[in-house]
Amino acid sequence: MSAPRVLVTVERPLLRRISTPEALARLEEMAESVAFNDDDRAWDAADVRERIGGATTVLASWGSCAYDERLLDAAPELEIICYAAGTIRGVAPPAVFRRGVRVTHAADFIAMGVAEHTLTVVLALLRRTGQFDAAMRAGRWRDIGPPADRELYGKRYGIVGASKVGRRLIPLLRPFDVEIVVADPYLTETDAQRLGVRKLELPDLMRTSDVISIHAPVLPSTHHMIDARMLALIKDDAVLVNNARSALIDTDALLAELAKERLDCALDVFDQEPLPTDHPLLGMRRVLLSPHVAGLTPERRSRLTDEMLNEMERHANGLPLRHEVTIDQLESMA
Amino acid sequence: MSAPRVLVTVERPLLRRISTPEALARLEEMAESVAFNDDDRAWDAADVRERIGGATTVLASWGSCAYDERLLDAAPELEIICYAAGTIRGVAPPAVFRRGVRVTHAADFIAMGVAEHTLTVVLALLRRTGQFDAAMRAGRWRDIGPPADRELYGKRYGIVGASKVGRRLIPLLRPFDVEIVVADPYLTETDAQRLGVRKLELPDLMRTSDVISIHAPVLPSTHHMIDARMLALIKDDAVLVNNARSALIDTDALLAELAKERLDCALDVFDQEPLPTDHPLLGMRRVLLSPHVAGLTPERRSRLTDEMLNEMERHANGLPLRHEVTIDQLESMA
Repeated sequence: MSAPRVLVTVERPLLRRISTPEALARLEEMAESVAFNDDDRAWDAADVRERIGGATTVLASWGSCAYDERLLDAAPELEIICYAAGTIRGVAPPAVFRRGVRVTHAADFIAMGVAEHTLTVVLALLRRTGQFDAAMRAGRWRDIGPPADRELYGKRYGIVGASKVGRRLIPLLRPFDVEIVVADPYLTETDAQRLGVRKLELPDLMRTSDVISIHAPVLPSTHHMIDARMLALIKDDAVLVNNARSALIDTDALLAELAKERLDCALDVFDQEPLPTDHPLLGMRRVLLSPHVAGLTPERRSRLTDEMLNEMERHANGLPLRHEVTIDQLESMA
Repeated sequence: MSAPRVLVTVERPLLRRISTPEALARLEEMAESVAFNDDDRAWDAADVRERIGGATTVLASWGSCAYDERLLDAAPELEIICYAAGTIRGVAPPAVFRRGVRVTHAADFIAMGVAEHTLTVVLALLRRTGQFDAAMRAGRWRDIGPPADRELYGKRYGIVGASKVGRRLIPLLRPFDVEIVVADPYLTETDAQRLGVRKLELPDLMRTSDVISIHAPVLPSTHHMIDARMLALIKDDAVLVNNARSALIDTDALLAELAKERLDCALDVFDQEPLPTDHPLLGMRRVLLSPHVAGLTPERRSRLTDEMLNEMERHANGLPLRHEVTIDQLESMA
């Protein structure tokens, strides 16, 4: 097959953060031509329209413009958009798919990182690693106050959203002999069986799970899906994790529930980021905070371009893509 | 088979900590007779000699005396010692086995807890959960200083000691696609293959692993097996975990190595416990401390008696024990 003509819309500073030097050398080698963005920001639609004329392939990432009709009109040879990031909704509207332009992205690659982060914070909260360390450094041996340290083994684990992250999490949990329940309106019974999980309605999941983590996309139907009523259903001393999107939980209701100090909670995403330094979360017990780092450690982030080059290569060789986005996935996808 | 006549050598306060009320009711129900220890301490050999006459079964735990020849002479009907704890060496000398008294213990049950704790601290150190939380609470977003957060996926993981814990850890690591290497002089190549791991000499493991956790028993041959020379071999930014026994590592050498702040280290066991409140570890960066809690959360501890009752029941029904200790295991066992 013919070598791609690649337009890299990502500005250099970001490109360096999502690439290894080896990946950039690989890109130059595998492409017939590569045009880089030497401006100090991601190109907007007008910038891209000017430059996309002969390109078969776009390498985009955070800050990408949307590929709307007008932009696509200027890109008659465009075959594939490789989006080295997760959330594709704003970048590839239905027009892209209707014109037969293929779309691939790094959502599943990022999902692995989020799944690992989820298990990390669940275990840290259950086993109370932070509290034990702090107590010892304060001269107290084992005296961490309630609740006691607990285990993951044998617990009931509620996954909200059978998304890529939710699915990546299942094998990480499996060795702990947990009972996995999943709430997701798009999950069929057959699929649930194949995944080895039990499908539950959201209120039943909230009411009965020892650990709950949220992995749903933000859609009109999922905005504030975890509201005061859902939070009130959670068992005392259960663990709640949100490293997906803050809009999935009603923050005011969450703050009120966490103030009761009856739950353990890990949060990686916030309505405003960076989190304001006077935010009430910062003074709360039983809360483990992280600054929107669940999906991408620096080492994983540096491999995003390489992941997309794998897809470009498959496309060029006529092989199926590993992470192709289809138009019927758009509705239920982040 | 006949119902056991049980001598419980564990003092009541400890017995309550290792039992659920249901387990104690179950013990009374399944036994022909049960004699409890209502003194304020575990019985010593003289105490047990006085009371063991008609017993077929001993339920012992921490603080147990050794079952030496003289004690066994006083226990002509003894069939089985159920040791509701881990380290059996001081309790069941070879004489026990020579007389045909069976021995079972909770080492594998405790090993599950240690394995979970190991993964917990490895992930917490790699993903830098404590540092991110502390930075945010101090008003800093993402600014945690070096090293950056890292992942477990795809790393090389070195297990020192193919003990019960080492073996229980393997399935927990497997979903992360780590390359698992094991150093253990008792591990055969066949066994390594069956476990899906690669056997390495200890220096090679120390030199090449991204994460190293120690799960060896304390034997003359393993005392200070991790000395200054071994510690110097470890790669910069690797993770080192010891939640087995402090005597496996030369503490002075460890303190000197950790003072360089080039490693991440989780420690659950110490030469002196509780750790003295002026100990240099308490002021160290890149160190995650826990107060000897790896094996037993309160919930796991409360199930120890139940685990031993399962074994008593199997013995009474002529079934193979799940956790029988044999005389040839003694040499390489904790």
